[in-house]
Formats: sequence, structure tokens, C-alpha cells
Amino acid sequence: MPFPPNRRWLLVRRPDGLPDPSCFALDTAPAPAPGPGQILVRARFLSVDPYMRARMSRSAGYAAGTALGDVMRGGGVGEVVASNHPAWKPGDIAETMGFGWQEFAVLTPGGVGPDAVHRIDPGVAPIESALSWLGMPGLTAYFGLLDVGRPRPGDTVVVSAAAGAVGQLVGQIAKLMGCRAVAIAGSAEKLAWCRSLGYDAGIDHRATADLRGALKETCPDGVDVFFDNTAGPIHDAVMRRLAVGARVVVTGRIALAAAHEAPEIGERHLGRLIASRATMTGFLVYDWWHRRLEALERLAAWHHDGRLQYREDVMDGIEHMPAALMRLFTGENLGKQLVRVG
Amino acid sequence: MPFPPNRRWLLVRRPDGLPDPSCFALDTAPAPAPGPGQILVRARFLSVDPYMRARMSRSAGYAAGTALGDVMRGGGVGEVVASNHPAWKPGDIAETMGFGWQEFAVLTPGGVGPDAVHRIDPGVAPIESALSWLGMPGLTAYFGLLDVGRPRPGDTVVVSAAAGAVGQLVGQIAKLMGCRAVAIAGSAEKLAWCRSLGYDAGIDHRATADLRGALKETCPDGVDVFFDNTAGPIHDAVMRRLAVGARVVVTGRIALAAAHEAPEIGERHLGRLIASRATMTGFLVYDWWHRRLEALERLAAWHHDGRLQYREDVMDGIEHMPAALMRLFTGENLGKQLVRVG
Repeated sequence: MPFPPNRRWLLVRRPDGLPDPSCFALDTAPAPAPGPGQILVRARFLSVDPYMRARMSRSAGYAAGTALGDVMRGGGVGEVVASNHPAWKPGDIAETMGFGWQEFAVLTPGGVGPDAVHRIDPGVAPIESALSWLGMPGLTAYFGLLDVGRPRPGDTVVVSAAAGAVGQLVGQIAKLMGCRAVAIAGSAEKLAWCRSLGYDAGIDHRATADLRGALKETCPDGVDVFFDNTAGPIHDAVMRRLAVGARVVVTGRIALAAAHEAPEIGERHLGRLIASRATMTGFLVYDWWHRRLEALERLAAWHHDGRLQYREDVMDGIEHMPAALMRLFTGENLGKQLVRVG
Repeated sequence: MPFPPNRRWLLVRRPDGLPDPSCFALDTAPAPAPGPGQILVRARFLSVDPYMRARMSRSAGYAAGTALGDVMRGGGVGEVVASNHPAWKPGDIAETMGFGWQEFAVLTPGGVGPDAVHRIDPGVAPIESALSWLGMPGLTAYFGLLDVGRPRPGDTVVVSAAAGAVGQLVGQIAKLMGCRAVAIAGSAEKLAWCRSLGYDAGIDHRATADLRGALKETCPDGVDVFFDNTAGPIHDAVMRRLAVGARVVVTGRIALAAAHEAPEIGERHLGRLIASRATMTGFLVYDWWHRRLEALERLAAWHHDGRLQYREDVMDGIEHMPAALMRLFTGENLGKQLVRVG
């Protein structure tokens, strides 16, 4: 094969708390060869996402973790460079959650579920969108808010990690549904971005000593929908402001990544759930994969109408994959964190 | 008026933890006189319920607490002894959640909501049923399980406080829906009663050192519906066994009554909610009051077909109201705790 060797990141150590560079090793292997019915894809963009912390453990709770010595799992989008599949030809753009942290992946089109290989139309949006607002984070925002959060016009929707890959979309969709959207994020710059997206109010949780007071001020009538991307102290503060009939969508626990394996000890809010007759639901986007196209079409239409904006935070070079991942846990990223490859 | 004086229990002290007799004072006042459109009802049965712990505090979260010096709030059923209302006559049986801990109550028929006065047909069931399986506890079991728990045939339904006023009904309704019902209760006698009701398995949480192990054994495929009447350590153990898509119905926190005002600190289960995509919902029966008759008709029909059994645990004499209430917190009651009056 005429392709250069395949650089790829292996998981070599399971983290105790936050992942650090010693968890990964950059390895070089011969570029893999596609078998019958397979395609060889050269990465253009790779994704880092909060769920990867869980996949670095032995078990992610909902899935097996990455085995030590294996290529880190993760989504990617790239260009077909060789094809043994009749429906794919070199130059086609492919995206899959099962790409892995590597320059070249052999993929098998035709599967279903999260690791299915999707053909990306570069005419619709930049191809990296398939890892961002037109991909898994977009689907999380769409189904998490609309189907689990069930926003009604006039509702107050509070979003944690509001300037992140998912949060930046949730607030905009909430506004499209006629809601009031309140951002919680970790810097003035992030909140300015949220404001520009249409968020009605914002709280800088790093600069606010009294998170509960700030929530009382920004949500005088309580919180109808809480889109919780972080867990931790923000979760605590918002749970105290739930309105009657509130819906809490629990998508992630990134605030707890440093203590991922430990049980989370804190105040339980069962009394508040009763008092507000609230519902708290754990969300996993793959449960909605069968409705993926519905969401992508709607997200794309909103964007093309100028009603849905997004930001991506791009690092250059596969050598930065661990650093890019770590930015998620330090909150340095603004918008969807990506790595451009090659 | 020819009626004897009205003995009534006043709330005179707010409890720190569990209520004790010093929280109440038995007072005697002239029997009240009904005004225009009102009826005077002589109590036959009074109810004690776990929610009363919350009403002894300044605020129950969802309602104002009883004021110090006021008659303790609570449900009762009794006989009309005087009427200034055209639709009611002496001898009629009236039930209301707004009776109060007293021998005589002046009630105003025609209201709506929890304090509405209902006419009870003694031909359908013993009149005290209106405080038990044909009243608020029955409605809690019915709507909590069917509308929030959404049981499907084959589901494993776990019920805490399974031999209590609500729990004894939940397991039977679960069986009527084609589910497997697992009881958690605090004595061998209670579990024997649950078995006789049709519960498929039971765990004595007072006799079981390894609650998690016992749940693993009795629920090998996980828990699809968790009807949580208690919170506390039982909640913890069951949350670890949730099946994918589980529904947790949180109706009460009686296990925490001794520390009612304190925040409940413990393991939070957000990671498990995500992993199992479970939903946890706080339940307040008054949200379902508009469908009260639907449930009562169905519960009565099941009972008359021999498919719904119940037990009541009756103390005699209004002087025992505080003691009857305390039995709920020590777990001494088997079935619905009532006090027969007069």
C-alpha cells in the first residue's frame, strides 16, 4: 500500500482521576489494508468527548472500556482512500463513532448503531460538523432537550456547560421552542458567546461564590428544564430551584471526572423531587440513533435558516489528542473540541 | 348543641427528628357548630400517614406546615350529625383529607382538591376503606405504579415498605399487570403477608446484612420499576440494580423521618441513571386527584373480584393518635394504620 504508516494513540494506563498524557502512547503501525467489503479512510478530524473518560475505565457502565494496549476509541471523519465496497469510492467522506484515535481506519460500511459508517455530504456543512453540531453532540442536544426535557413555551431551561459542544446547541433549541434559556458556564468569554447565541441570562460558576443566589435571581419562577451536562456542585444548586413538574436531563458528569471511579457522595434530592414532582432521567444518545436522520435534517435546516450557530475549538495534529481531551476536563474548550489531522 | 365536647390533638411543638408525644396536646373544646352550607361530622376513623411528619415542620416542601397550636391536619371518615347543606343529611358518611385529628369536624361540601368532602357509600366497602385502599394510599399505589412506574408484563417491580398502606397494594397491582413483584419489608411477618398477597419474592431489610446481594439474587435481570416508599439505605441498594430503562417512583422518605430537616447525604446515582437510562420521578398523589374516581372504581372492582386484598392496623381511641403515628416510623404497623374513634 502506498500509504504512510498509521500513527495511532493507544490506551496504556487507566487513569486514577483525570486522564493525563501518561495514559496514552503514540504508536506507529503499518497503514491497515481494507478487506472485502471494507474501506480505508484517512482521518481529517478526530473528536474528543467527555464520554471518553468513562471508556478509559474498565467499564463505562453502559459499555466495556477500551482494553489496555488498544487504540483509543472515538469518533472521526475522513476521506476514503481505498475501497473494496461497491457503494464507496476514493474521495467519499465517511464518519463513524468507531474511528479510533488514528490516522487511518479500516471501516465496514453497512453496520447499524453507534459504530455505523455514515456518508457525509460536504455540500451540507463542513465535514467536521459530523462530529459536532451535525453529529453526536447535536443529537444529544436535540433528543435530550426535545424528547426528554420536553420544553414548553415559556419554560425556563437551565443548561450547564452551556458553551460546550452540546450546551451551545441546547440553549438555541430551547429558544426556538419559545423558552427562556439560562447558561451556566465557566468564564466571561463563554457566557458572552452564550449571550450571542440567544441565551437570556448566564451564570459564571467559577466567578460566582453564591451559585444558589445567582440561580434564584436568574430563575425567579424556578427551573422547568435542567439540562445537566456536568453533575457536581452545579447540579446541587439547580436541583434546589426546580419548579413543579420540572424535568432534569442528566447527560454527563464531567465535573466529577477527577473522581470518576469513586461513588459520588453529596446531598440527595429525593425530597425536592417529591416536592416539585420532578423527573430526573439519565440520557444516552445511542438510544435515539434510530431517529438520527430526523434530528440531523432539522438541525441542518435551522442552521441554514441562520437560527442555529455553533463554534468549534480545533487543535492541529494527531499528536495533540491527549491534550485536546484534557481541555474538556479543565474547561478550556469553547464549543466542540476537535483535532484536525494531516 | 347536644353534642359532647370535641377532643382534638393540637400540634404544640415541632419535632427535631422523629415526632414524640410531647409534640402534641390533647385539648377539649366545645363541639363546633356548622354554618350555612356546612355539615358537622363525628369522626369514626382517623388516619395517620407518613406525610404528617412533613406537615409538622414549618413547610412540607409542597405545602405549608401545620401552625403551632392548630389541630393536627389529617384525613378522617365519619358520620354526619348535623347538616346545613341540602345534599347531606344526618347519617351520611363523609370523608376528607381535611378532617383533622379531632372527634368533630365542621366541613364544607363542594370543594375540590385534597380537602374536598367525599360522600362514602357504606355498601361498597367498610367506611374506613376510604382512608386506606379506597382512598389516598390506594390512589398513591394506583397512579404511582400505573402512570409513573408504567409497568409492562414481565417487568420486575420492587416495592419498599411493601407491607404498608401503599406497598401492600402496589405489589398486587403489579401482579395484575403481569409483572414480577418483589417486596422489601422489615419483618418475617410482613413478608409472609406480602407473599400471601402474591408478591413473588421478599427481602427482610432488617434481617439482611447484605441488601445488595439479596437484591442481586431476587432480581437477577435488574429492577424495571422501583416503587420507593422509604428512601435511605434501601433506595441505595435498589438503585444499584436498575435495569436499562428503569422507572423509579419516589413517593416518600419515611426511612429518613428522624433526620427530616437535614439534607440527606449519601451516594448520588447520576452515573447509574445514565448507564441505565433510568427515570426517577417524585410523586405527589394530589396531582392525580382529577382521576380519583377512575382509580377508586377500578380498585373496588378488583377487590370485589377477589383480586385485591388489604390489611388495616387499627388502634382504638382518639387518645392514641400520637402513638399510632409513631408506629409508622418504627415500622410496627402491618397494612394501613388507622385509629377508630368513639
